[in-house]
Amino acid sequence: MTSSAIREILKITQRPEVISFAGGLPAPELFPIEEIKNAADRVLTDHGPAALQYSTTEGHLPLRNWIAERSRISPDMVQITSGSQQGLDLLGRVLIDPGDVVLVESPTYLGALQAFAPYAPRFVEVATDDDGIVPEALDDQLAGLDAKLLYTIPTFQNPTGRTLPLARREALLEITRRRGVTIIEDGPYNELRFRGGEVETIFELARRDSSPDELNVIMLGTFSKVLAPGLRDAWVQGPRHVIDKLVQAKQAADLHSPTLNQMIITELLDDVLTNQIKIIREAYGQRAAIMIDAVARKLPEGVTCTNPEGGMFCWVTLPDETIDTEPMLAEAVDRNVAYVPGRPFYATGARSNTLRLSYVTSTEEQIRTGIDALGAVIADRLSRGVPARL
Amino acid sequence: MTSSAIREILKITQRPEVISFAGGLPAPELFPIEEIKNAADRVLTDHGPAALQYSTTEGHLPLRNWIAERSRISPDMVQITSGSQQGLDLLGRVLIDPGDVVLVESPTYLGALQAFAPYAPRFVEVATDDDGIVPEALDDQLAGLDAKLLYTIPTFQNPTGRTLPLARREALLEITRRRGVTIIEDGPYNELRFRGGEVETIFELARRDSSPDELNVIMLGTFSKVLAPGLRDAWVQGPRHVIDKLVQAKQAADLHSPTLNQMIITELLDDVLTNQIKIIREAYGQRAAIMIDAVARKLPEGVTCTNPEGGMFCWVTLPDETIDTEPMLAEAVDRNVAYVPGRPFYATGARSNTLRLSYVTSTEEQIRTGIDALGAVIADRLSRGVPARL
Repeated sequence: MTSSAIREILKITQRPEVISFAGGLPAPELFPIEEIKNAADRVLTDHGPAALQYSTTEGHLPLRNWIAERSRISPDMVQITSGSQQGLDLLGRVLIDPGDVVLVESPTYLGALQAFAPYAPRFVEVATDDDGIVPEALDDQLAGLDAKLLYTIPTFQNPTGRTLPLARREALLEITRRRGVTIIEDGPYNELRFRGGEVETIFELARRDSSPDELNVIMLGTFSKVLAPGLRDAWVQGPRHVIDKLVQAKQAADLHSPTLNQMIITELLDDVLTNQIKIIREAYGQRAAIMIDAVARKLPEGVTCTNPEGGMFCWVTLPDETIDTEPMLAEAVDRNVAYVPGRPFYATGARSNTLRLSYVTSTEEQIRTGIDALGAVIADRLSRGVPARL
Repeated sequence: MTSSAIREILKITQRPEVISFAGGLPAPELFPIEEIKNAADRVLTDHGPAALQYSTTEGHLPLRNWIAERSRISPDMVQITSGSQQGLDLLGRVLIDPGDVVLVESPTYLGALQAFAPYAPRFVEVATDDDGIVPEALDDQLAGLDAKLLYTIPTFQNPTGRTLPLARREALLEITRRRGVTIIEDGPYNELRFRGGEVETIFELARRDSSPDELNVIMLGTFSKVLAPGLRDAWVQGPRHVIDKLVQAKQAADLHSPTLNQMIITELLDDVLTNQIKIIREAYGQRAAIMIDAVARKLPEGVTCTNPEGGMFCWVTLPDETIDTEPMLAEAVDRNVAYVPGRPFYATGARSNTLRLSYVTSTEEQIRTGIDALGAVIADRLSRGVPARL
């Protein structure tokens, strides 16, 4: 199911009777619809011709200025993209030559694997534990490996929900600088912390003592998770020599992202955005707590689950490595509950006894009902025993 | 200037004192701003959560249905793209392997050359005359050439404004079928006829006697030229096996095009669109007539210009092949007039004494003033003599 996993799952989740923990969809009832409607009206009234005309490849300057100021960089270090998926694709296009080693977490975001795959890298998994990438293990690995890129989601990772602690971020930066590796830091969930203290991004740590051209960290940010994904507005920020290449690649790929959408988002910066982040953190925090509680009480003994401090996902591991959550999905959907099987999130060496749950698009009652059903599916599976090991 | 030509030109055209015939921009004063504003309001009021959520990669089904019905094909033969530029990029991605022969007109649309270039094809120019591609010459060429694709803009071509007559379209179809070549028919200007009779698209000719899987023509269409380019909505229609691959490529490239924009366009189909096409045809027809008249009267003797029946461009050839319109552009901009030098439109064997003019974004007075200025620039250039031939 790897290659079209996201797409097929999006289809399953459209069946109304299924309680879906499968999607990576933000909660639509929290979208600031009225504010977006008013912003669209203002933009079209005040700047109609500009909003509807062709525009520059780099993106709408006031939006790039806001992003740049936030990270204390210059706007020529920011490229607007149509979702972070496009940022990943364009980065693959300009940075990856066939056979290049790209280090990834184990597991990692499957959309990134899909975005990079056409450029034929050699994916190598980095050792991880409950706190994410293990720096010492990475350093050892790099001694025998000519790696070009490290792709990581250090904050509320997709799919595990894990967050890399500050000390490890500092260590990662030191190691990659010393070893000549560029970090691609994917940060779609950065704003979605609902408990615990903020941790600085690797980009921010790197920016402090790097010139705009020496920086070895590229960060992706998006408005999909904090405003609305259907607008498809995200960005890549990084060293100028990379952004310059991205501009060329973006021009060949689609000329520019929709002007109207970028202007709508610019209207929502600061006030609406700040308020949205507050609303989303509160709602997701409540839903996460309910799910973590239900998982602890209703999933069979031996099942483990991460306990995220933010973001949209938690990660479940079943007690026997021979269990495969892919065929089990059909049983789950029969009981009207859906998840994403873990396998497609692994670049190599998949652990098939894993699955991803999203807590953000379900009500309290749906979470309880869905986790009950999932508990029954897993218990059934365990009671049937596991295939004999050969 | 080839690689970033469009982008640099878009920058020049933003200087208000320059009369620009350079852009490929539709006339912004004709954008249906009020109608788009009302459509955005209706979409967000009636379908806010769906308009702002992630959606399917293939595109908004009612929009695909409309496109499909118009061409009497099924909606699974239609993929929505973010502008035709993305359609070209994705087609390059799924159809072109390094070294594949891609036949192109001479000259052709430089954005297509840029979109295909990353996939490392071998571009081969097809012989053209004042009516476009010469079928007999193509057939002879194909006898000694293992060509995979033929990229063509048969209707109001960019950059020449030429239209391929029906008999040649039929011949092209017969030849490519016999020789096993797939045609990519780019049709961004198809609706913009202001004089002469309609000519059927090659796609339509092919569809009549091909099954959805045997079809050897892929067509690109767009709403950029008839509604507004800033919405970035276009499509590719073609045989199912190609569209299936495009869906996969689109998913890796940017998941899907913005939902809101697709729903806005769906609201404008039929009534607003029909009316817009009427308005645009009339306005562009008037502007073309004024430009063709001014060119005939004000450009020095020996200069030739095409006389398009629709679309946005005409193509000027200066009387001496050794003149280079690239350095001449600086002289033109000094006199506050801009054009696109011809060279980047050639895949190989450029004729440097050519340039493209757009008549659609200028007023009658601007056209007269600008062509006067261009006439002076060319006269100056000719009076200085041409470099001695070696």
